[in-house]
Amino acid sequence: MATSTDKVFMEGALTICRQGIEAGQTPFGACITRNGTILTTAHNNVRNETDITAHAEVCAIRKACRTVGDIDLSGATIYSTTEPCPMCFAAIHWARIAKIVYGARIADAAQYGFNELLLANRQLRELAGLSIEIVPDFMRDKALALFEDWQTLGGKPY
Amino acid sequence: MATSTDKVFMEGALTICRQGIEAGQTPFGACITRNGTILTTAHNNVRNETDITAHAEVCAIRKACRTVGDIDLSGATIYSTTEPCPMCFAAIHWARIAKIVYGARIADAAQYGFNELLLANRQLRELAGLSIEIVPDFMRDKALALFEDWQTLGGKPY
Repeated sequence: MATSTDKVFMEGALTICRQGIEAGQTPFGACITRNGTILTTAHNNVRNETDITAHAEVCAIRKACRTVGDIDLSGATIYSTTEPCPMCFAAIHWARIAKIVYGARIADAAQYGFNELLLANRQLRELAGLSIEIVPDFMRDKALALFEDWQTLGGKPY
Repeated sequence: MATSTDKVFMEGALTICRQGIEAGQTPFGACITRNGTILTTAHNNVRNETDITAHAEVCAIRKACRTVGDIDLSGATIYSTTEPCPMCFAAIHWARIAKIVYGARIADAAQYGFNELLLANRQLRELAGLSIEIVPDFMRDKALALFEDWQTLGGKPY
């Protein structure tokens, strides 16, 4: 279930996403919080770092692990402008993050040309028998608008 | 289908895995090749780098992208001492790697205490409608022996 602070933290993900677009990166942002505080935000850095694994969520998890000095982020929430891809979903599982809140869907990113694995978070949760909380389609219109901004600027998917 | 060079390259993954175990890391190694040449090898660095995403395959893909200066590793093969977890499987998909050869299974790693998502590579391939080639259980006994070595040295799963 979405909470009153979810909007604030999703704005954090949208803001870093916007910064990424302005820096020539693809339109994905993530924000990790715990106990009502932001641990870290990150945008996608795939092109910037020549690293196909440098999705926003993976970058945010890496930074958060180092920030707290622990590979275990139990109790944390991740806000993603777009539903985490299966790579990021599994990274979230490994980090023991408790809740995912996302805006646009994997299928939306595929519409913009990204070579997505079309396996939704709720499908993976069910298949793997997980209990992670998932809040879908949260502020989805704002996330979709960032895809439009990115495309207008001549962004290319991968 | 396994080829005559697969054994050589899997030995590369087993060797780097062994180096990781000796350095106090968990028992996972990967080797990425293309056109009959090794692009990169890596062992798991999760504890070393305080980064839950630093699985052997993710580390190897990052290094390979930077080595070739491209996020697209089309035509490459990845050798993993253990079946890539869903995070690594999806990273392999994003990198457009053509073939996976693995030794032990995800279920084996789970037996040693790792908090695995029990979604096998072939299951994910079928669900997502992919055509990536998968060679399972290749030199599995050698990969399993490394789990034993790691456990004997007091290794802890995550």
